[in-house]
Amino acid sequence: MEKQQLLINGERLKQTVEEFADFGRTKNNGVTRLALSEEDRLARDYFCSCCIELGMSVKVDDMGNIYARLDGVETDKPPIVIGSHLDTVKKGGRFDGVLGVLAGLEVARTLVDHNIKPRVPLTIMNITNEEGARFEPSMMASGVLSGKFDKSTMLETKDVDGVTFEEALQSIGYAGSEDERIKEATAFLELHVEQGPVLERESLPVAVVESVLGMVCYEIEVTGESDHAGTTPMDMRKDALFATTNIITEARQKLGALAQDLVFTMGRMNVYPNIHTVIPNKVVFTLEARHKDPVIIKKVEDIIQGLTEIRNNEGCEITAKKLWDRSTVFFDENLCNKVEQAAKSLGYPYKRMDSGAGHDAQFFASYIPSVMIFARSINGKSHCEEELTTWEDCEKSVNLMLEMVLSL
Amino acid sequence: MEKQQLLINGERLKQTVEEFADFGRTKNNGVTRLALSEEDRLARDYFCSCCIELGMSVKVDDMGNIYARLDGVETDKPPIVIGSHLDTVKKGGRFDGVLGVLAGLEVARTLVDHNIKPRVPLTIMNITNEEGARFEPSMMASGVLSGKFDKSTMLETKDVDGVTFEEALQSIGYAGSEDERIKEATAFLELHVEQGPVLERESLPVAVVESVLGMVCYEIEVTGESDHAGTTPMDMRKDALFATTNIITEARQKLGALAQDLVFTMGRMNVYPNIHTVIPNKVVFTLEARHKDPVIIKKVEDIIQGLTEIRNNEGCEITAKKLWDRSTVFFDENLCNKVEQAAKSLGYPYKRMDSGAGHDAQFFASYIPSVMIFARSINGKSHCEEELTTWEDCEKSVNLMLEMVLSL
Repeated sequence: MEKQQLLINGERLKQTVEEFADFGRTKNNGVTRLALSEEDRLARDYFCSCCIELGMSVKVDDMGNIYARLDGVETDKPPIVIGSHLDTVKKGGRFDGVLGVLAGLEVARTLVDHNIKPRVPLTIMNITNEEGARFEPSMMASGVLSGKFDKSTMLETKDVDGVTFEEALQSIGYAGSEDERIKEATAFLELHVEQGPVLERESLPVAVVESVLGMVCYEIEVTGESDHAGTTPMDMRKDALFATTNIITEARQKLGALAQDLVFTMGRMNVYPNIHTVIPNKVVFTLEARHKDPVIIKKVEDIIQGLTEIRNNEGCEITAKKLWDRSTVFFDENLCNKVEQAAKSLGYPYKRMDSGAGHDAQFFASYIPSVMIFARSINGKSHCEEELTTWEDCEKSVNLMLEMVLSL
Repeated sequence: MEKQQLLINGERLKQTVEEFADFGRTKNNGVTRLALSEEDRLARDYFCSCCIELGMSVKVDDMGNIYARLDGVETDKPPIVIGSHLDTVKKGGRFDGVLGVLAGLEVARTLVDHNIKPRVPLTIMNITNEEGARFEPSMMASGVLSGKFDKSTMLETKDVDGVTFEEALQSIGYAGSEDERIKEATAFLELHVEQGPVLERESLPVAVVESVLGMVCYEIEVTGESDHAGTTPMDMRKDALFATTNIITEARQKLGALAQDLVFTMGRMNVYPNIHTVIPNKVVFTLEARHKDPVIIKKVEDIIQGLTEIRNNEGCEITAKKLWDRSTVFFDENLCNKVEQAAKSLGYPYKRMDSGAGHDAQFFASYIPSVMIFARSINGKSHCEEELTTWEDCEKSVNLMLEMVLSL
């Protein structure tokens, strides 16, 4: 006979998500809860009180990360950590980040409801400033903990009003001790909304995330000559915007032929002098591309270098400068398999996929076995007030998280 | 026996151009002399004193236009007017505008030198605010005199500091009477630097300007969807910048095939939200085109309308809005012929051409027989400190003006 499957309380999860959305809710039912803001403080305080009410112990580290611990049977074993972030971008949604933290809370509540003491301790982690919307860069705290970012540089980072990260952290009362940092764990589990349209297109509620895609970002500068739009014959122009059009057309052809799952974007473009009666003498634009396979990324870079030598350059000079890159982060294969088994045991259709967006889990993966779960995003929207994951999918994804915890 | 040809004093012309360049000379040998600025006042004052020294009478109208009159034999006949502007753009050149005013001064000086009294009066006109660099629109005063612009609206126009045109005009002491406006004239003659590269390419010092090209300017708006650059597969995007690239490519093909001498420019383009990690959801850009033939301009407009229905629109919506247009202004054919004859008599190679840029003469042409002379621009540059017309070409173009005055 099959054993009765333990499930979370979907109604309570929904209520809790809505409670947290009140900390910074916007007119259009989105959320503005910038890192270390008053709204962030209120959300943190309420999160801590919910955990303490469950009998959990709460600690804070020097980057303001919160750790709420539920003791396990084997209390000395490294904990299972469920972590994500309570901060949002300006006019963000109700799910990005907070769903992963509240998944941990709902899992803990469910265990306590049923008097289940997990084998190893369970830690729910709220990770500071994942968004980087107030203090750049994004994933700041996980970056410091994993040694990617320098702590003192991060503490000195200022917001637009000149307030440093350190001052803001102290002012909301969440400057803790370096001793409290997570150093080892049985697993780091992050549930997050997909922020893309793939699961919706394929009618799947959840996904096992195998990797965070590697990426490369270039800035391309095209320099021509700014002449009078009325007096300069077409064949005597060096129009930087015409050259840019040729470059983008060629880039799309070549990059499009490289790999079907390569994504590439020219997101930022500035035209100079940007006057309707003057031929543009300069265009600067970004070209970023993401793919799992470093061989493909290398080919992307070769193509970008080739664009500077494009034949139809309209007499302009073209340079390409790499702004940054990051390598693909692969999550723990064993944990991926376990999420897959958990989804199967719950009867949820799923797929294995990659994350095109960055997440804290990619930094923790450098020293803790880590994996991510995605919940379907409606229309793939995120970082906007329309961001939506159905309550049903929220519930399923958290059930999947609970099943993972039980299976570990 | 051929009569001795009267010529201007080229050395004096050069000195005078340099004297005027001192009113606002920039570090890089350009000029900043915004309309109704202190530099403009100094240039105006000096211009008036030069004219008075020649025995000319000076009057000022209600738009601040200056009229310096040298009496003719037939003193009641409508004058020949030589006019252009002393104002410049910010960091403009030493020749744009001022050469046309100083051409008048040098012609008057030459006549006085040789005790020649012209048949009809000769008026040198400095026209206020041609550039529109401080107070928009450009060609403001000639627009008011020709009834294109409303005077009271123009007087209320403010600069970036909130100073109105009227206040600025009064503060430099050049607010005169409406009675002084030019109402009729035997001819309006404007000498100007070409501001384009055509004369240099064809090794010609001067040109007879037959028309100011008609033009049309549209604003095209492309609306897609802004999704995450990392999580949105290429086939699920509505990238407004990709659509814009397709539109520009198609526009170039179709407009390029329309007429060899059509000029078209996408000078202003803004991309939204203009973040490297976000797919652009909106691009707004201008498309302006200039041609002599209204039939061609009509075809341009049909092509622009067709662009909104482009097949490869990447799922975006495209709208095109006309910002403005202007019809081709044809200069007086009789005067064109006279300039041509004058060039021949001086032995100067020349061509008949059209002006792609706007000039005050186009407005006066609506009620006064008008024509323009172009002097060769080095590299076609204008509205910049590198603007250059050789002293030799300055001299030739003013000799041509003198010959025109003598022939009328």
